[in-house]
Amino acid sequence: MEPEQSTITVRWMAGGEHIQDLGRRSRAASRRLATASTAQKDAALLAAAEILLERAPEILAANEADCEAAATDGMEPGPLDRLRLDPQRLDAMAAGIRRVADLSDPVGEVLEGWRRPNGLEIQRIRVPLGVVAIIYENRPNVTSDAASLCLKSGNAALLRGSGTALASNRAIASAIRAGITKSGLPEDGVQLVDDVSHESAVAMMQLTDYVDCLIPRGGAALVQAMREHATVPVVIDGDGNCHVYVDASADLVEAVDLVLNAKTQRPGVCNAAESLLVHRAVADEFLPRVGAALVESGVELVGDADARSRFEMGVATDDDFAREYLDLKMSVAVVESIDAAIEHVNRYSSGHTEMIATRDLEAARRFTHEVDSGTVIVNASTRFTDGERFGFGAEIGISTQKLHARGPMGLRELTTSKYLVWGDGQVV
Amino acid sequence: MEPEQSTITVRWMAGGEHIQDLGRRSRAASRRLATASTAQKDAALLAAAEILLERAPEILAANEADCEAAATDGMEPGPLDRLRLDPQRLDAMAAGIRRVADLSDPVGEVLEGWRRPNGLEIQRIRVPLGVVAIIYENRPNVTSDAASLCLKSGNAALLRGSGTALASNRAIASAIRAGITKSGLPEDGVQLVDDVSHESAVAMMQLTDYVDCLIPRGGAALVQAMREHATVPVVIDGDGNCHVYVDASADLVEAVDLVLNAKTQRPGVCNAAESLLVHRAVADEFLPRVGAALVESGVELVGDADARSRFEMGVATDDDFAREYLDLKMSVAVVESIDAAIEHVNRYSSGHTEMIATRDLEAARRFTHEVDSGTVIVNASTRFTDGERFGFGAEIGISTQKLHARGPMGLRELTTSKYLVWGDGQVV
Repeated sequence: MEPEQSTITVRWMAGGEHIQDLGRRSRAASRRLATASTAQKDAALLAAAEILLERAPEILAANEADCEAAATDGMEPGPLDRLRLDPQRLDAMAAGIRRVADLSDPVGEVLEGWRRPNGLEIQRIRVPLGVVAIIYENRPNVTSDAASLCLKSGNAALLRGSGTALASNRAIASAIRAGITKSGLPEDGVQLVDDVSHESAVAMMQLTDYVDCLIPRGGAALVQAMREHATVPVVIDGDGNCHVYVDASADLVEAVDLVLNAKTQRPGVCNAAESLLVHRAVADEFLPRVGAALVESGVELVGDADARSRFEMGVATDDDFAREYLDLKMSVAVVESIDAAIEHVNRYSSGHTEMIATRDLEAARRFTHEVDSGTVIVNASTRFTDGERFGFGAEIGISTQKLHARGPMGLRELTTSKYLVWGDGQVV
Repeated sequence: MEPEQSTITVRWMAGGEHIQDLGRRSRAASRRLATASTAQKDAALLAAAEILLERAPEILAANEADCEAAATDGMEPGPLDRLRLDPQRLDAMAAGIRRVADLSDPVGEVLEGWRRPNGLEIQRIRVPLGVVAIIYENRPNVTSDAASLCLKSGNAALLRGSGTALASNRAIASAIRAGITKSGLPEDGVQLVDDVSHESAVAMMQLTDYVDCLIPRGGAALVQAMREHATVPVVIDGDGNCHVYVDASADLVEAVDLVLNAKTQRPGVCNAAESLLVHRAVADEFLPRVGAALVESGVELVGDADARSRFEMGVATDDDFAREYLDLKMSVAVVESIDAAIEHVNRYSSGHTEMIATRDLEAARRFTHEVDSGTVIVNASTRFTDGERFGFGAEIGISTQKLHARGPMGLRELTTSKYLVWGDGQVV
C-alpha cells in the first residue's frame, strides 16, 4: 500500500510544518510577554474582555453552528451542554478574564536571596515558563480561561481545543488577540491551533524547540496519548480516584454528611469521591447509615464481602477500586486498621485527593503523612481540592504528578525561576 | 527472521521483569524512608560512611579490576582517571557522605499555610519525591553522592552507572546498603541496577509505576536517549553552551580575567564558557587583548568575520556557535548592540549559564531580564554556577529545563510538596 502510506506522510509533514510555524511565533511572542509590565498585561486582559462582549453576536453565532453540527453528529446532552454558550456564559467568561487581571502578577517575585562569603549576591526570581501549550476538550470557556492565565503570568499560550468547538474557539481567540493587539503586546501571545487532526496533536506534543510546558486537560485517552507521544515537558492534569476513609474514631453523623457531599454534590468532577473505606470497628453502625443515605441520593454501591455483609450492594472487583466513575457510583471496602486504609489508598489512588474522617490526632497525623497524594484532607469534603476554593483566584488545572506542580495550579504554577548572580569581578 | 526477533523479545522481557522488580522494591522502601526521622537518616549515612572505609580493601580491589578491564579495552587516560579510586578518593567519598548528614533535612518544611474564610486550614509541606532514578557514567563516586543525597531527602535511590564501573559500584552500593540496614531502615532505599544493557536503561526510563523522577547525568547521547524513550518524569542535567558577553561599558581589564577564568580554569565542565560575544564599540581594543591571553593559555579560537578581522583565528560556523566544546576551544562573535547579544544568546544557548561584563546598570538589567537561561551572572565567572559554590552544600546536578528545577539542584530539588487541609466538617 505504498501510495496510501506516502499520502499519510505528506499530510503529516504538512501538519507538522504548520505546527512548527505556530511554535516559532509563540516563542517570539513569549520573549515580549516575559518582559511586559503588569500594567500592560492587565490592559490587554481588560481589552480582551471588552472585545469579547462587543463581539457577542459573532461568538454566539459561531457557537450555534458548532452546537448544531455536534447535535447532528449525535453528541450526548451532557457534552452538548458543556459546548453551548449563551449571553450569561459569555458574560461569565468576560468576568473571568477581568478577575485574572485583578490577581497579583507572579512574575518578578524574589523567591530568595543571599550573599556568599566571596561577596557574590545570588537571587532566585520568578519568571514565566515561556510557551505554555494546552490541549483540552469541548468547553469553549477553557479558551479564555487558559489564555488569560497564561497572559497574566507572562507566557505565550498555544491552545488546542476539540474539533467540535473549533468555530467557537476561533471566535473567542480572535477577540482575545484583538485585545492583546490593542494594548500593544504581540497578538501571537495567544494562538489557537486550528488543525484539529490527531497528527497536529502529536506534532504539538513533540514541539521541543518551542514548548516549555504542555498541560493536557482531558480524559484518560488524552493522558495515555501524552505518555506515548509527548517529548516536551508535561504537567498532567490527571484523573481523581479520590478516597474517603472513615476511621474508628470518626464522628459518624458528620462522616455521613462528608461522604454524601464528596460523592454526590457534583459527581462528574475529578475531586468527587469514588471509593469509601470504613474501619471495621464502626462498619456495623456506619455502613447501613451511609449506605441508605447514598442510595437515597441515587448512588449505586459496589463493595467487598465485608461491606456487602453489612449493606446490600453489588460486588466490587479490583477494577472497581481502581476506577474513577465520574458518576453516581461508589466502591466500598471495610478495612482492618488505619494501616490497611493507607495501604489501600496508596495502591489504588491516582494521587489526587484523599480524606480521613477522624477525631483521633494520631490517625490524622499518620494518614496525612503516609498517604502519598497531592492533597490530603482531614474532616472536610474532597470537593475542596480546587484552585478557587484554595484561594488562588483561578485554576489552570490540578496536577497529579510530583514534578514542578502538585495539586491545584494557579498563576504561580505557570512560572519557573531563574538565578541572578551579581559580582564585581569574582573568579574561581 | 522470526526466531531472532523472538529471542530479542525474550531477553527484553527478562530485563524488563528484573527492572520492574527493582522498581517495586524501591517503591516499598520509599514508603518507609518518607516517614523516617532525620536522626534515623543521619545514622544511616554515618554508618554507610564508616562501612565504606572499613571495606576499603574490597572496594579498591573491585575498582582495580574495573580499571584493568577498562585499560585492556582501550579506555582513554581521562575517563580512566575518573574511573580510578585510591585511598584518598575513598576518604573523600566517605567525607562527602558525612557532609550530607550535616545538611539540614528538607522534609517536613511548611512552605506556606493559610486559613480560608470557611475555617479550613491549608498547609503546603515539603515531602520526598519517592523513588529517584539516576543514570550516570563511569565515575564511581556518583554512586555514593547520589545515594546519600536521595537518602537524606527521604527518597529511595535507583542507581545505574556504567558497565565499566560495575564492580566498583556494586562494592560501594553494598557498603551503603549495609549502613542503611544497621540504622534500621530498609536496605532497598539504595539499589544498584546491575544489568547494564541498553534494554535495562530503556526499561528504567519507562518504569512509570515506580519512578517519580529520573535524572540523567551524562552526555548528549544519554539526553537524546531520554528524549526518545523516557515516559517517566525527567529532570535533565543538560549541557552548558555558556556565553560571556563583554558590553561596551565593561571594565576591559577585569573582563580579560573573567573570560580567562570562565574558559580555562576547568574547560571540561558544563559551567565553563564556550562562546565570547564582544560589543563592536570595544572590539578593536578588547579582542586583541583577550585573544592573546586565551591563545597563551592554549585556547583555540574560531570567530565570525568581524572577530577574525581584529585577531587571527579560525572560521566559526553556525555549528560552532551551537557547540559545547568542553575543551580549550572557544567561538567568538562581534555584536552590534546588547539587543544583538541577547538575541545571539537566546538563539544558541542551552539555557545553562550566561554572563555579562558591564558597568552599565541598564545593560545589566536588560541582560538579566531578557536572557532566558537558568543562571545569569553579572561581572563574575560562569564557573560559579554550582551547588557547592551557591552554598547548597551538595549538588545532584544542574537542571537546564524549566519545569520543577532550574539551575543547580541540591536536596530541596529532590522533594515535592503536598497540601494538607484541616477541617471540622466543612462541605461544599
